[in-house]
Amino acid sequence: MLAVTILGNNSAVPAHNRHPTSQIIQIQDHKFLVDCGEGTQMQMMAYKIRPGKINHIFISHLHGDHYFGLIGLLTTLGLNNRKHELTIYSPPFLQDIIELQFQAGDTRLPYPIHFTMLTDEGIIFQDKKVTVECFRVNHRIECWGFLFKEKKNIRKIDPQKVVEYNIPSSHFEMLQEGNHYVSPSNETILNELLTVPGNHASSYAYCADTGYFPQIAEKIKDVDLMYHESTYLHAFEKKAMERFHSTSRQAATVAKQANAKKLLLGHFSSIYENIEEFKTEASEIFENTECAIEGVCYIA
Amino acid sequence: MLAVTILGNNSAVPAHNRHPTSQIIQIQDHKFLVDCGEGTQMQMMAYKIRPGKINHIFISHLHGDHYFGLIGLLTTLGLNNRKHELTIYSPPFLQDIIELQFQAGDTRLPYPIHFTMLTDEGIIFQDKKVTVECFRVNHRIECWGFLFKEKKNIRKIDPQKVVEYNIPSSHFEMLQEGNHYVSPSNETILNELLTVPGNHASSYAYCADTGYFPQIAEKIKDVDLMYHESTYLHAFEKKAMERFHSTSRQAATVAKQANAKKLLLGHFSSIYENIEEFKTEASEIFENTECAIEGVCYIA
Repeated sequence: MLAVTILGNNSAVPAHNRHPTSQIIQIQDHKFLVDCGEGTQMQMMAYKIRPGKINHIFISHLHGDHYFGLIGLLTTLGLNNRKHELTIYSPPFLQDIIELQFQAGDTRLPYPIHFTMLTDEGIIFQDKKVTVECFRVNHRIECWGFLFKEKKNIRKIDPQKVVEYNIPSSHFEMLQEGNHYVSPSNETILNELLTVPGNHASSYAYCADTGYFPQIAEKIKDVDLMYHESTYLHAFEKKAMERFHSTSRQAATVAKQANAKKLLLGHFSSIYENIEEFKTEASEIFENTECAIEGVCYIA
Repeated sequence: MLAVTILGNNSAVPAHNRHPTSQIIQIQDHKFLVDCGEGTQMQMMAYKIRPGKINHIFISHLHGDHYFGLIGLLTTLGLNNRKHELTIYSPPFLQDIIELQFQAGDTRLPYPIHFTMLTDEGIIFQDKKVTVECFRVNHRIECWGFLFKEKKNIRKIDPQKVVEYNIPSSHFEMLQEGNHYVSPSNETILNELLTVPGNHASSYAYCADTGYFPQIAEKIKDVDLMYHESTYLHAFEKKAMERFHSTSRQAATVAKQANAKKLLLGHFSSIYENIEEFKTEASEIFENTECAIEGVCYIA
């Protein structure tokens, strides 16, 4: 299971009580923060997200509506006397910006920050249960999407069957990986008799700010849940293209090409006070679409 | 008349639905912004302050709770297609911080920003009706207070009397400055016969973040309205001193020494969910005290 909580769904500027981009991804033992527009720490407070539990922050690009809230959050974590390391993944420059501001305020944090610069597509974080990959999208400045995946779950040992077939425990790991058991007398016992399937491994793709870029579909093929920006409705397709943003229909097209299970739209332009039409337009191309609403937790 | 609207009254971090420091000072034709903590542009929206009318921003010091909202506000002004110049007064470093962030986002503003570095105490802005002075306070890093004053109003011509005494209009300016009229036949007509007093010239002192620093009183003598930080109650006087902050009683003492007409307390620590006790403590020393409440407009 994987859960995405929306902290901001507006583009560029705060408006209509909508905030700039930020999301919390809860996956296995992790609470990841993706982007951190101005006011993110206030939004966390409003939705009872405890920032101390966040150990990894992913910043897609250095337009302000995706990171101006970071310096305030980092400062607050320090004032809360955080001690454990925080890792920040971002394009270059962010470390310089943050360090210059701490220098200006003569601020010394009580916890270490590890900055990781995004340079190549591929895995940027993994442990036994989870991988995070980054992939390039098509924006006016360097910009990255992130793909969060639970690792394919190993098969589960059936405890009654392994006793019944007298399987030595030294072979359990091999069974969990899906192999058959071959006994000393050369008898094969099929894996399916000894194990049951593990849980579904969930996945989530955050496609950041991007113009229409069908190459994204290959990177996130068969993803359970994807977030794709949809700054404009179809009528403003030309403006979207000029500004390296997408329309509702373009987001839906990428979701269809990716064979995603569900699409979340966000990053709505402030010209739209009402965002219902985004869902209507996108659903014509990709039915299982929702508009990302602040404070709502979406499950994959 | 002079009006101060509080946009943030909390210290260090946002808490209890209170925000970091920011204030709007309306004086004559001006709308000045003083400090700009994270979320200031959202607070302006909440309280219907139009940021396009602000042409001068005063930043007291470079602790984040006093300026982390500035970069977002400047960006929004650009997205709103502002064309006219904005002047920012601050300690050194701020220009570097702002420019680095615009460089990282490849952002080109459609309006010019003029950065003015605070170096000496004294007048930093004036026109025919208003002066703004800066003065040093006592904080962990370089920090400035600001004194906003209407210029002593010129006397008003009494239109009936100048006709009655047959005064040529070329002498009106001299009369407004308080001089008597001497006729060609060497007859003196007293100023008081020809003019009436102008309105009271109002003044406001923003004393920023500071430890107890009685020298402030001399700089702002007889001010109509003063804002003094009051991060802690009296019980935490030691902690206040260590952190270069003030208590309610210390703020009141400075107000008394300054012979101020009215005191506003603010910059409350997040350890206090309820702030009423601040007024109680301060009023014992300086009666005309109020706690600065967000969204409220205080008149001097």
